[in-house]
Amino acid sequence: MSANFINSTRDHKFILKEWLNLEQVLATPRFKGGYSVDDIDFILDNALKGAREVVAPTCEEADQIGSRFENGHAFMPSACKEAYHFIQQNGFCSSNKNKNDPSAVPLSVMWSMMEYMIGANPHLGTILAGPAAAGEVLEEFGSDYLQRTYVDKMFSGEWTATMCLTEPGAGSDVGDLLTRAYPTGEPGVYNIKGTKCFISHAENGICDNTIHLVLARIEGAAPGTKGLSLFVIPQFFSDEDGHITEPNDVSVSGIEHKLGLKGNATCVLNFGEEGKCKGWLVGDPPGEDGVGAGMKQMFKVMNEERLMTGHAALSLAAVAYHNAVAYSQERIQGRPLTDPKGERVPILQHEDVRRMLLFQKSHIEVFRAMIINNFYLLDLAYNSPDKNLARYCANLAEVNIPIIKAYCSDMAIECISTAMQCYGGYGFSEEYPIAELYRDCRIYPIWEGTNYIQAMDLVGRKFTLGKGQVFADWLKEITDFVNKNEGTNGFEREFALMAEALQNYQGILATLGNYIGENKISMMPLFATRILHATGKLLGGKLILDQALLAQSKINQLGSEHFDYAFYNGKIAAARFYVRNIVPEIGTTLSIFKDGDTSALDIMEEAFLV
Amino acid sequence: MSANFINSTRDHKFILKEWLNLEQVLATPRFKGGYSVDDIDFILDNALKGAREVVAPTCEEADQIGSRFENGHAFMPSACKEAYHFIQQNGFCSSNKNKNDPSAVPLSVMWSMMEYMIGANPHLGTILAGPAAAGEVLEEFGSDYLQRTYVDKMFSGEWTATMCLTEPGAGSDVGDLLTRAYPTGEPGVYNIKGTKCFISHAENGICDNTIHLVLARIEGAAPGTKGLSLFVIPQFFSDEDGHITEPNDVSVSGIEHKLGLKGNATCVLNFGEEGKCKGWLVGDPPGEDGVGAGMKQMFKVMNEERLMTGHAALSLAAVAYHNAVAYSQERIQGRPLTDPKGERVPILQHEDVRRMLLFQKSHIEVFRAMIINNFYLLDLAYNSPDKNLARYCANLAEVNIPIIKAYCSDMAIECISTAMQCYGGYGFSEEYPIAELYRDCRIYPIWEGTNYIQAMDLVGRKFTLGKGQVFADWLKEITDFVNKNEGTNGFEREFALMAEALQNYQGILATLGNYIGENKISMMPLFATRILHATGKLLGGKLILDQALLAQSKINQLGSEHFDYAFYNGKIAAARFYVRNIVPEIGTTLSIFKDGDTSALDIMEEAFLV
Repeated sequence: MSANFINSTRDHKFILKEWLNLEQVLATPRFKGGYSVDDIDFILDNALKGAREVVAPTCEEADQIGSRFENGHAFMPSACKEAYHFIQQNGFCSSNKNKNDPSAVPLSVMWSMMEYMIGANPHLGTILAGPAAAGEVLEEFGSDYLQRTYVDKMFSGEWTATMCLTEPGAGSDVGDLLTRAYPTGEPGVYNIKGTKCFISHAENGICDNTIHLVLARIEGAAPGTKGLSLFVIPQFFSDEDGHITEPNDVSVSGIEHKLGLKGNATCVLNFGEEGKCKGWLVGDPPGEDGVGAGMKQMFKVMNEERLMTGHAALSLAAVAYHNAVAYSQERIQGRPLTDPKGERVPILQHEDVRRMLLFQKSHIEVFRAMIINNFYLLDLAYNSPDKNLARYCANLAEVNIPIIKAYCSDMAIECISTAMQCYGGYGFSEEYPIAELYRDCRIYPIWEGTNYIQAMDLVGRKFTLGKGQVFADWLKEITDFVNKNEGTNGFEREFALMAEALQNYQGILATLGNYIGENKISMMPLFATRILHATGKLLGGKLILDQALLAQSKINQLGSEHFDYAFYNGKIAAARFYVRNIVPEIGTTLSIFKDGDTSALDIMEEAFLV
Repeated sequence: MSANFINSTRDHKFILKEWLNLEQVLATPRFKGGYSVDDIDFILDNALKGAREVVAPTCEEADQIGSRFENGHAFMPSACKEAYHFIQQNGFCSSNKNKNDPSAVPLSVMWSMMEYMIGANPHLGTILAGPAAAGEVLEEFGSDYLQRTYVDKMFSGEWTATMCLTEPGAGSDVGDLLTRAYPTGEPGVYNIKGTKCFISHAENGICDNTIHLVLARIEGAAPGTKGLSLFVIPQFFSDEDGHITEPNDVSVSGIEHKLGLKGNATCVLNFGEEGKCKGWLVGDPPGEDGVGAGMKQMFKVMNEERLMTGHAALSLAAVAYHNAVAYSQERIQGRPLTDPKGERVPILQHEDVRRMLLFQKSHIEVFRAMIINNFYLLDLAYNSPDKNLARYCANLAEVNIPIIKAYCSDMAIECISTAMQCYGGYGFSEEYPIAELYRDCRIYPIWEGTNYIQAMDLVGRKFTLGKGQVFADWLKEITDFVNKNEGTNGFEREFALMAEALQNYQGILATLGNYIGENKISMMPLFATRILHATGKLLGGKLILDQALLAQSKINQLGSEHFDYAFYNGKIAAARFYVRNIVPEIGTTLSIFKDGDTSALDIMEEAFLV
């Protein structure tokens, strides 16, 4: 069932207008002379209106009817078509990636608007994100032909794009994929042969054409990920005028019957079953060392998709939360424990319901702070004329990406499950909005690199990037924040807990270093997931507490009679809840990590299934 | 999709034959001369065979076709009919409640077998448990007429029974229900008027008759729960020979469209729409004080249903785990981190997959230990001629019930979600068994009293039962265990952690006492859920470590060449993992509880939805 309440713009306005320094982005050459911060209210309100009125009504069909596979072709539900084109034509998504579009908004603004769109219909997530990401890749790495043929179609969203990595026998280990590319007489054009699976919206019935970004190995290239190249494989060929002509030799052999996101057709995709699949190489072929540029190019897309995954998790959790609050305000049930003979009250007044709601609210605000702040960092990274600042922001964002993907998606599931608990028996009913969100959200910890892959990216790669300087800078942001504010009136306890958390977190890093020094390498993968979660809590505590300090200063200025008082009061409560109830778990992670139990490594393999 | 692997009997054999003193139960007058411990292997193997061969194949239809509502009547899928009667006729369920049946087995044995049945088809859970519980209630409290008419039909499972508490306007606050009973000329017979909702299998098409155990208020009785009475309202009347005659005035007006357990028809049930609904009072009507016996009688059933809920959560988590292990053994993906140039390996060899599997295994063994041990306590409580022992065991079981219901159901969801993560993208596919388990399991934290209701039952009621002596005895079992074994060779670390956990747990109790002493009553409901979880971890740590000590002594006897070595090795690994990775979280609960954040109480109501 589609949700009754799709979000509110208030927290985004706080983030974009009050918390982040959006002026700095809007003053860069790309955005100068365009929108100002004063336009944010209208931009967000307008987007929310569109999400509620046009997009949200399409969600029920997307879930209940779902995608279908008929006569060898896959189709998304027809309701999705209108919603997709509405979003694209109104400039809420991929057109913002077009550097030549004067009406484009920064990423931090675009993804604020997209929270409403994805929350209103999660089934559209990948088909919207695909062309935005593909356009950028082709703009950066594509040949003149590829740019001329596809970039505008991508940015306008007229055509969409997929990412094809996974194969039936190769998921997390991309380097073992079997899809092959054979040179043809035509330079840059290859004959492709292979099968990909779990390909979102590979056929969709929404766009006239879909281009597949496909990782494949050119015959003779090096083994493993380094030998891979990236290809553009269009569903239909097209002429110089941008009209589609003949179909390529690409076919869908079936779609998945899934737990959720049923409107998103998840396809098995065959390239070259008739030996006639043409693919265009992106960039140069592998040199004599056999090393292709495919993984690096694909990671340009992949990083965006990982952020998008955390963002989708946020979007769904936010909708679940808003509905749970509304339900809790309306549902009359039970009497206050402190007044057992009194009148029955809305369940929002019960302590445990308030705990469950504040658990959700604080997590969602942490997710949103992480994600919009990260897009803000990317706005500066991509657009700031100050190259040092740009590089610094790009580096912080690099560290944040696996945290956002994994922490937000894992915790969003807990948030949505908590929203369901607020509803009681009605939560389990598909007539209310939570059940679908609970199903849809469960893919996010799995796709675009499982959350373990993210954890290893953080612990194995991001911790050591630039000889560790990148992560040192990342951590210094938090240390500086805590040091600078530790005596703040009214937040003494929160900063004491953050200081303790920082010390514990540094203990985790030191413990990891010790294990590696002792050559106990397996301790890294064994604890990576838990370290990532501890990292998420540390970052989350910093961001939400930073917001609370701002909220407090607003309250000090405006007083408690101001209409915005409740909003700022809620920001402070969410920060206190998070720092005092969630952040202390970092200490547990440290003590368990130091204890260093290896039973999961030691147990006999046969013992798992006796 | 129905699961490929339905469990194994090995851990139940360990529990029943090696860990618990089942001889003590089998030597009681009720069971003496019947089965011996040597029969356990056959009993369990036979049950597992039936579950696999007869019951499991019916699960897919139950989920995929689901229940239907046609021409004003609800039906469970027809496949369920055969499975239901197979289970009942083969003595796996309600016949074991019949004290006159010489082939009956103890509850601890019955619920071991039922783990396979419920795991094989969770949709059958309530329809199987209903008559078992109702038969006992009527045997204890029912009039001669009710006993004569219904008890045998219940124990044989020929007819089934429901529990009707919830109404559209009264769920957790049962005392506010609106269903009314009006005396008729006939003694003990009432005219019933009201609507109940979320009634599992109220109509089912499986049994020829269903009797509804209905809480209602006799006109003039006291308000609140204390004025309620319990009624038997049959779907069909029957004659002296046990043949059904006319239908009663009871109708189903619809069934829920649910997230899971779709085969279980969840009905809205109307009594007396035509003014002709007859209900038979169980026990005596309220006296002059207006106090009825309904809640007390219903709680006889309710306690069993709560145990059954924890048991169902265990059953589903166990199936998910067994399938995840089998998948992880077969799925070849990636190379060892410590041998990146080596061969690709089954994912079971990856550290994080092993962590995820051992997380599941250790939790499942904790759930099973809690549950089967609790049925063992009830076996002694109901059957031991030693009245002191019987009372002592009944008291321990009373404390355990809310822990089993809430801790097992909350954590089973995490276990199943973890099993899904082991599968990667295939986990999200309904073609594999995890997706359905993930959906089905989500009801257990909600029904039979939400997990918050359980937490308040523990903290508000069980902590203070018998002036606190009952809980003091419960806790002493754990203290004695830790004190007795703390120096055990090879388990020094585990017992040190248990001793620390005990101290932290006592800190939680003391903190709760302090808050109550300071009249901060709201701290109890605010932290009740977390205290229940801490209690679950403490009990779980004790039980699984006790099993590990036994497993170690078996290894010492049998050596590492014995075919059972892997099983015992796994028991020890599971205990170590649980005690070293999960039990320490009790310390975090203490420090957060002591910190005593009240932001969820302080936040302005309006702030939740800005």
